[in-house]
Amino acid sequence: MDDRRVDVDSLVSEVSEGAVVVDAEVMEGYRHDWARDPEAGTPVAVVRARGTADVSATLRWAHARGVPVVPRGAGSGLSGGATAVDGGIVLSTELMRGISVDPVTRTAVVQPGLLNAEVKRAVATEGLWYPPDPSSFEMCSIGGNAATNAGGLCCVKYGVTTDYVLGMEVVLADGTVVRLGGPRLKDSAGLSLTKLFVGSEGTLGVITELTLRLLPAQPPQATVVAGFATLTAATDAILAITSALRPAMLEFMDTVAINAVEDEMRMGLDRTAAALLVARSDAPGEFAALEARTIVGLCEKAGATEVFHTSDAAEGEAFTAARRFAIPAVERIGPLLLEDVGVPLPRLGELITGVAAIGERNDVLVSVIAHAGDGNTHPLIVHDPTDPDNTARAHRAFGEIMDLAITLGGTITGEHGVGRLKKAWLPDQVGPEVMALTRRIKDALDPTGILNPGAVL
Amino acid sequence: MDDRRVDVDSLVSEVSEGAVVVDAEVMEGYRHDWARDPEAGTPVAVVRARGTADVSATLRWAHARGVPVVPRGAGSGLSGGATAVDGGIVLSTELMRGISVDPVTRTAVVQPGLLNAEVKRAVATEGLWYPPDPSSFEMCSIGGNAATNAGGLCCVKYGVTTDYVLGMEVVLADGTVVRLGGPRLKDSAGLSLTKLFVGSEGTLGVITELTLRLLPAQPPQATVVAGFATLTAATDAILAITSALRPAMLEFMDTVAINAVEDEMRMGLDRTAAALLVARSDAPGEFAALEARTIVGLCEKAGATEVFHTSDAAEGEAFTAARRFAIPAVERIGPLLLEDVGVPLPRLGELITGVAAIGERNDVLVSVIAHAGDGNTHPLIVHDPTDPDNTARAHRAFGEIMDLAITLGGTITGEHGVGRLKKAWLPDQVGPEVMALTRRIKDALDPTGILNPGAVL
Ligand SMILES: Cc1cc2nc3c(=O)[nH]c(=O)nc-3n(C[C@H](O)[C@H](O)[C@H](O)COP(=O)(O)OP(=O)(O)OC[C@H]3O[C@@H](n4cnc5c(N)ncnc54)[C@H](O)[C@@H]3O)c2cc1C
Ligand SMILES: Cc1cc2nc3c(=O)[nH]c(=O)nc-3n(C[C@H](O)[C@H](O)[C@H](O)COP(=O)(O)OP(=O)(O)OC[C@H]3O[C@@H](n4cnc5c(N)ncnc54)[C@H](O)[C@@H]3O)c2cc1C
Repeated sequence: MDDRRVDVDSLVSEVSEGAVVVDAEVMEGYRHDWARDPEAGTPVAVVRARGTADVSATLRWAHARGVPVVPRGAGSGLSGGATAVDGGIVLSTELMRGISVDPVTRTAVVQPGLLNAEVKRAVATEGLWYPPDPSSFEMCSIGGNAATNAGGLCCVKYGVTTDYVLGMEVVLADGTVVRLGGPRLKDSAGLSLTKLFVGSEGTLGVITELTLRLLPAQPPQATVVAGFATLTAATDAILAITSALRPAMLEFMDTVAINAVEDEMRMGLDRTAAALLVARSDAPGEFAALEARTIVGLCEKAGATEVFHTSDAAEGEAFTAARRFAIPAVERIGPLLLEDVGVPLPRLGELITGVAAIGERNDVLVSVIAHAGDGNTHPLIVHDPTDPDNTARAHRAFGEIMDLAITLGGTITGEHGVGRLKKAWLPDQVGPEVMALTRRIKDALDPTGILNPGAVL
Repeated sequence: MDDRRVDVDSLVSEVSEGAVVVDAEVMEGYRHDWARDPEAGTPVAVVRARGTADVSATLRWAHARGVPVVPRGAGSGLSGGATAVDGGIVLSTELMRGISVDPVTRTAVVQPGLLNAEVKRAVATEGLWYPPDPSSFEMCSIGGNAATNAGGLCCVKYGVTTDYVLGMEVVLADGTVVRLGGPRLKDSAGLSLTKLFVGSEGTLGVITELTLRLLPAQPPQATVVAGFATLTAATDAILAITSALRPAMLEFMDTVAINAVEDEMRMGLDRTAAALLVARSDAPGEFAALEARTIVGLCEKAGATEVFHTSDAAEGEAFTAARRFAIPAVERIGPLLLEDVGVPLPRLGELITGVAAIGERNDVLVSVIAHAGDGNTHPLIVHDPTDPDNTARAHRAFGEIMDLAITLGGTITGEHGVGRLKKAWLPDQVGPEVMALTRRIKDALDPTGILNPGAVL
């Protein structure tokens, strides 16, 4: 966009009344996602779309003028994917909140602005379950989940967002509305376009509706909590568990996270442990307790210092909530650089000990929490933005951790997406041929490059 | 390709010794897939690739000359996707047969030529299970499965091929080799390219390696067989079952299929039944028998005339084998036009009774078998190629059945792919915008259009 003086007035008349926001104070709330990138730009307007027509009109308008558009769900992203760009539009789906549930096909048709937790609650009234459960489920949108292919805690058994997306309505860069897939449990007609848009982080189109596959309500779960004196004992236990059975959850917190959570929640977590695992089984009937006992045995064999198990739902949920709270809790120590590196499971121990070494070498505090059963970890680098030297070391550690993951045959992002903050490392992971292929698809679908410029590519 | 006199000799020196076949008799076996399209072309050569290098060299060679290339797995496809084209190359992966299994990550790295059954057997030696199970599992390749996003019998609970593909090596139209994804259970780095190639039917690239997600061995199954006097009673039972629980299998055969199978297998199926359901549960321990009894109750409530259930593995497998044998059995009545239409589950009854009406109206024999729990049916139109009038009526019924599925909000293909035989109906299902989007991606990835021309698009 060469001319910064974009004619926003001409957009106002194209969309629903009140949809276009230009008030600087209100717009401030749309400049950042949860990663709070200090380099976020300033948009010329925010469009709070009332429906697909507003999304289409906005893109048509932007496409004709070459104005950048950053799609935005709830702004809980951790990779700067929804960071505003100077002179662009932030296109928010937060007001698109419809849902309808079909209990026979076990599907729901949802608009993107609904929060993940709201989807879960709406389908629960029909005795159904939408599994994907990012820790942020109370504050992230289902559209954002699809755009990032979000994961979560139950994904170790139940898979990620893409496994639950049967269809969608998506608006292309030029405003064209297309419908892909639908409420059919199997559909091989044409290319797998639905799946291409899942995880595309707003770079190929704006998702305006999703058809989601649902499961029957999850059975009651048994929960195991185990403390370990060393990181290695904990990762040994993880591999022993995943080799023996399929837990419904298998989460990890290191000592920094344990203490940060305990500071806030006072639930009696073992502050002296080097690591804590929280595992769950939702096998039917007494098999949940049986699996839990197997997990207990494997933890003890791996050298756990303390193991506790319960079939009480409230008690189990409290430990899960503690794990979910780990990111905000560690954030109270200081601002975070948030990683999302994953490795093939057998390399998990090397990743976790390697991250600790990187923290030490760079003299920065790094806490690690993980969706351990998936090999997906979140090293949280605490830094002090007022201290340039500390900040430089934190950023160096940020890069070194991604380099380590790549060296171990892993990924720079297991679930948060590349966004803007990790894109410098994407070529190192996937190589020049895949980057070229990605570019070809991007250019084919968004030839003028207005969609989320600077993200991923 | 303008010049039919392609210089095949120049290809011979580019690939492994003996890889290029030009013997007309041998090539005859590579002209058709299982759909036996009478309009199949004649290739100038068949390349039996020994490895990725042969695939890459062949595509580089073909790309430079504009020679069409039809990728081929085991040729069991039912939609003419692997039908040879005049003057082109058939690129067969049948000799690429490596496999290695990682029991800790629960993944397998396989070459595309391995049969689905061989993959299952290899991973079973490690106590693991590769779920997708097309009825053709003893004769279809894993590469063909990925290229068509194959389904099968257990997919009602365990999903389709794409749900098990974590990564792949794929050779692009110009011979470039790219690696996508890998043995990481979660990976959000960049676009979901792996998933785009799954189901692309050889139109975007040639798959030369797959990284597959595996599950622990399937628990023992309980099996229910139920006969019904009317189609409606059977479809009522199907909806009652899928609303109540998640069976590990829920298959349907109509009376023509029952009798055709019974003619061959003599296992005492009720020849008078209008329809037969075969359902299985693999819930742990005694829950399998419990679910089976629930299924029995629901079948009886829907008016089943005869219901049988067993926890004996061999007995259960015999009924499953009977269902799997339905296509070859009906084929003994006469050559088939094979459909693969699917609908949202609540419309299944309308689809099945509608298909019967189409058969009657056109005076052709149509047998229906179905992966009923998915809403995915296979109407089998028996026809007599020596009778032009019968053939015309059969082809009219073939189109009308797809039209009906589209009208019911369904798909022209649930699992076999569009290939060449269904492509005339694809625009009716997905609409012009999706066709244009598909074309944009095809052109971006295969600008000279050498990959499987005439398939899908
Ligand atoms: C405390 C905390 C815990 C978290 N835990 C997890 C976790 O366990 N697992 C996990 O996966 N993530 C987690 N996240 C990250 C975040 O919540 C997810 O990435 C989520 O999917 C983002 O959804 P959102 O609606 O907030 O999207 P946003 O942040 O608004 O956007 C994210 C990306 O998606 C694009 N986008 C949003 N909506 C659309 C749309 N409708 N169409 C096209 N593109 C769109 C944006 O352009 C951007 O690139 C966590 C975040 C926090 C703050
Ligand atoms: C009796 C019978 C029962 C069947 N039951 C089922 C069923 O239950 N479920 C089901 O889904 N299917 C079923 N099928 C159909 C068929 O077996 C599947 O479509 C199977 O996936 C095809 O595999 P193939 O190796 O035979 O592929 P082919 O027939 O050789 O090719 C199929 C398509 O994939 C492409 N292709 C093949 N290999 C590659 C590669 N390596 N890279 C890129 N493209 C490639 C081809 O170009 C073609 O478009 C059945 C077929 C028969 C004959």
